[in-house]
Amino acid sequence: MKMVNLNTFFKPKRIAVIGASKNPNKVGHVIMKNIIDGGFEGKVFPVNNSGGEILNCKVFTNIKKIKDRVDLAVISVPAKFVLKVVKDCRDKNVKNVLIISSGFKEIGNSKLEEKLADFLNKNKMMAIGVNCLGIYDSHNKLDTLFLPRYRLKRPSPGCIGFVCQSGAVGSAILDIATEQGHKFSKFISYGNATQTDESDLLAYLGNDPNTKVICLYVEGIKDGEKFFKTIKEVSKKKPIIALKGGLTEQGMKAALSHTGSLAGKKEIYFGIFKQTGVIRADSLEEMFNIASLFEKKIKFKGNRLQVITNGGGYGIISTDNIVSSENLTMAELSNNSKKVFKKVFPKTINLRNPLDLVGDATTERYKIALEECTKDKNIDGIILVVLYQTPLITTDIVEIISEYKNIGKPIVVISTGAEFTEVLSESLEKLGIPTFSFPEEAIKSIDKMVGYQKFISKR
Amino acid sequence: MKMVNLNTFFKPKRIAVIGASKNPNKVGHVIMKNIIDGGFEGKVFPVNNSGGEILNCKVFTNIKKIKDRVDLAVISVPAKFVLKVVKDCRDKNVKNVLIISSGFKEIGNSKLEEKLADFLNKNKMMAIGVNCLGIYDSHNKLDTLFLPRYRLKRPSPGCIGFVCQSGAVGSAILDIATEQGHKFSKFISYGNATQTDESDLLAYLGNDPNTKVICLYVEGIKDGEKFFKTIKEVSKKKPIIALKGGLTEQGMKAALSHTGSLAGKKEIYFGIFKQTGVIRADSLEEMFNIASLFEKKIKFKGNRLQVITNGGGYGIISTDNIVSSENLTMAELSNNSKKVFKKVFPKTINLRNPLDLVGDATTERYKIALEECTKDKNIDGIILVVLYQTPLITTDIVEIISEYKNIGKPIVVISTGAEFTEVLSESLEKLGIPTFSFPEEAIKSIDKMVGYQKFISKR
Repeated sequence: MKMVNLNTFFKPKRIAVIGASKNPNKVGHVIMKNIIDGGFEGKVFPVNNSGGEILNCKVFTNIKKIKDRVDLAVISVPAKFVLKVVKDCRDKNVKNVLIISSGFKEIGNSKLEEKLADFLNKNKMMAIGVNCLGIYDSHNKLDTLFLPRYRLKRPSPGCIGFVCQSGAVGSAILDIATEQGHKFSKFISYGNATQTDESDLLAYLGNDPNTKVICLYVEGIKDGEKFFKTIKEVSKKKPIIALKGGLTEQGMKAALSHTGSLAGKKEIYFGIFKQTGVIRADSLEEMFNIASLFEKKIKFKGNRLQVITNGGGYGIISTDNIVSSENLTMAELSNNSKKVFKKVFPKTINLRNPLDLVGDATTERYKIALEECTKDKNIDGIILVVLYQTPLITTDIVEIISEYKNIGKPIVVISTGAEFTEVLSESLEKLGIPTFSFPEEAIKSIDKMVGYQKFISKR
Repeated sequence: MKMVNLNTFFKPKRIAVIGASKNPNKVGHVIMKNIIDGGFEGKVFPVNNSGGEILNCKVFTNIKKIKDRVDLAVISVPAKFVLKVVKDCRDKNVKNVLIISSGFKEIGNSKLEEKLADFLNKNKMMAIGVNCLGIYDSHNKLDTLFLPRYRLKRPSPGCIGFVCQSGAVGSAILDIATEQGHKFSKFISYGNATQTDESDLLAYLGNDPNTKVICLYVEGIKDGEKFFKTIKEVSKKKPIIALKGGLTEQGMKAALSHTGSLAGKKEIYFGIFKQTGVIRADSLEEMFNIASLFEKKIKFKGNRLQVITNGGGYGIISTDNIVSSENLTMAELSNNSKKVFKKVFPKTINLRNPLDLVGDATTERYKIALEECTKDKNIDGIILVVLYQTPLITTDIVEIISEYKNIGKPIVVISTGAEFTEVLSESLEKLGIPTFSFPEEAIKSIDKMVGYQKFISKR
């Protein structure tokens, strides 16, 4: 069976919302509203038995009554009506259906879901869902999520593609990641994966030119062999950062009653991820920490990191974390760098790694350190700790860091603090320089990025 | 030798600042300014060769020229003058000196530091420092930190005592923790521990009625036996949460050139912490996550947690983390709770742990779940995931959670999201309910708290 191209889900020109509602608290209303408020440039047709008008759009009592061609149907009717509505879609020659409705396998209603899958396959239709939150495409201004825009920020167009089996969790993560300034290409909540599954979605994002890095939260895999082949292929092209839910026996049971997923063994997943170059995230927070490095198109040519700091404690903690990491090592300053530093730095500064510029460090001292370390051939990347609480750091340090960011090795900045710090960190982020609040999380993320780059270069 | 009581450091009536300066960029100026701006209610005397006035205070050319009694001298002169200045203090009968100056053991100047320590001991003087940031006491309005108040937020009076060997790191952490709403009793940066060491400070905080939980960042231990005895005693009275810097060989070397500390083996520290009931934090972020639970005076009577959620994925991730933890297990809903839920909840809700109230969960549904779970004798604590992005959660859920917080078992709330979420989380925090952004960090912190409570109850 040849699959319908997933493109139609993300670039439809005409959308029918089946189960659209006048009641602002109903899912079918929120979806209509979000499609319109999201700036969708095509036509949208509400469908509901009761007729009338919703948000100034004429309501059709059945999708078959719409005269225009319809590319995508978004379905949010009770589970028992879904099959009937999907048949209407088939009759109207709508090949793509996004099924929000829940009440299937996840509550033991497997037969209904199988029947639905059979029908979809026989009729060469393609479905995302059931039991999902919808999809969001920032580039194509498509917002079919059923969560109000005032509660859930929508991200700007960017390069992170996020595939998330869980709807509410996906939306919460999307919300916080957007506030942190991350930009997304697509967000896809796919729920029970009744027909289109995680592998189809990953393959699609693998070919999507807007997507440069893929984040995946997955509970169960529909087809192990297909998944293995897919991630192996896709991760050659772009990084996949994956978090697996349902790693423990009790977690697996919970997954079964959430998205009807058979979760499978932890060791198997970890093994598969390792073999295929998939980057394993250990938490949701880490997933986006790693993604943010790829988002900024950072590349480490090697694994030798130089730590520069004005807080000795962070130098030590960074060292501990680099040494204990899987892929990273501490760089050794070249004799030339040491010679230069010896001339200009006060005696209180030890010429080593970590390079502790000490509490009275000036912006000028950072400039000298960056000047040499970015040239130093013993160094592949720089962990730059800047604690803005110390009085001699001037705010123009932001411009200075930015001057050195394109010399050919990545600079990752670590700054901990309240408002004063946040303003400066945001400026750096806007200039494309990754910033973290704590050394531990920065180094974990770099470690995983370097691990992926090593994997890719060996192929 | 009988030690001078540390109390005088935190409750002085008259302070001399030796090395006070007119230049606003100098440490000696910032300290003067902060003592005054911090609301210190006693007298402050600047001391500097050059005389004149600083911030409307008459400058004395030598501490001996001050006619009033002086309780505490804060010293920020170059290292080579420190001993001379300390002798002046002895002559003036000042027993407590806080030495900010650096340039001692940490840059190889061990002899000078030993000489200083000898002098202090022989003259029964007590010193905090050298090479430190100063001390801060929110209850006594004492701010001797040399970092500007506009760059570093000062915390409100509270119950966290924070002992930090590293100055800049300590200040950065203080800054971010304060913004997150944590409240502190005392912050002590003690640098090289020339005389007063981490054990003295811990023993002091152990007896300090304002301090209910102690956070410790330590690089090296001066006297292992003393440390062991001290933490064993103190952790019986109140929890100590410790992060050790310099765990790897290279980290240890860095510690030597930071605070002149011999860092010692990881396994030894971990073993000592375990034996004495000290809670080991694996990162600075985790240290304050754990502290925030103690700050809210939460007590788990047992280790059985019930997860309630409107995001199935977070239910699964929480389950994975609880099952993989050291001290926690998943609670089992009693038959009675199940009976009640069966009557009122829709079929889409599986009556298990995690209890997934699903995406269309209302505030009422949460109320019912809390009503039963707080009564349920099979449950010792509740992980309450509330993803506010879903439309049927009303903002009065904050009051409802707060109604159930005092029924006898802790409720810890997990909410991920941007502004809308943040406002609600802040309200909960103000009502004394701990909130976290991600399930992983919440459960790690609870695990360590329950571990401590288990340890204490066995003694």
